[in-house]
Amino acid sequence: MTFTLSTTIDLPWAEALDHTRDALSAQGFGNLTEIDARSTFEAKLGAEAADAMGDYTILGACNPALASRAIAAEPEVGALLPCNVVVRRGKDAGVTTIEAIDPQAMVQLSAAPAVKVIADDAANRLRKALTALSS
Amino acid sequence: MTFTLSTTIDLPWAEALDHTRDALSAQGFGNLTEIDARSTFEAKLGAEAADAMGDYTILGACNPALASRAIAAEPEVGALLPCNVVVRRGKDAGVTTIEAIDPQAMVQLSAAPAVKVIADDAANRLRKALTALSS
Repeated sequence: MTFTLSTTIDLPWAEALDHTRDALSAQGFGNLTEIDARSTFEAKLGAEAADAMGDYTILGACNPALASRAIAAEPEVGALLPCNVVVRRGKDAGVTTIEAIDPQAMVQLSAAPAVKVIADDAANRLRKALTALSS
Repeated sequence: MTFTLSTTIDLPWAEALDHTRDALSAQGFGNLTEIDARSTFEAKLGAEAADAMGDYTILGACNPALASRAIAAEPEVGALLPCNVVVRRGKDAGVTTIEAIDPQAMVQLSAAPAVKVIADDAANRLRKALTALSS
């Protein structure tokens, strides 16, 4: 079992990150947050830890209409939001890997049927974004 | 089944939020992200949607040492990070609710045994933070 939807793209790091942001935007996801994990780890844990991991950014993708409906259905669901999308490239990797959280896997944790319907919608959009990236 | 560890505190909104940040910090979690969902929804969906939800902030709590070990054990685990902590207060609520994602529930989605050990550590720290808030 996996908890992500994933693809790879054969582009330099900065371009791969830009393309990912654009593909998410085209599916109605804004980037509410962006964590440069490499820089964070370098600042907190030193250059060695950062180099071992490589380039690693976590985008927090949010479709406000879907998020609002999900929170109305189950107020604590914000603990599962936004939809994280990892963009990463190990130091010796030839391609960049994109891994979006699978909303359907996440809401296995939720009891609310309405949340599962909303997760289907989010999952379809994330799949389309990844398909656009890999084509 | 629930996917959060939770408590309530009887403090005004801004103080409740400050106390939550401090309690997380005391357990080694920095706030990598902070989403003011109320303001986001107001900007994107209008005042009515924001008012229906009430005050709602999602803190992204990260312990760099634990996160680094988890990513080393399972690179895609960043899709489950940081640990989200919801601080919310409905418009007619008498108290503020704090709900941290339960790391042990999250890593049911992961296959890596090392990640489960790290999640235990994170869960213990989040429990201590919530206990400190409610005492």
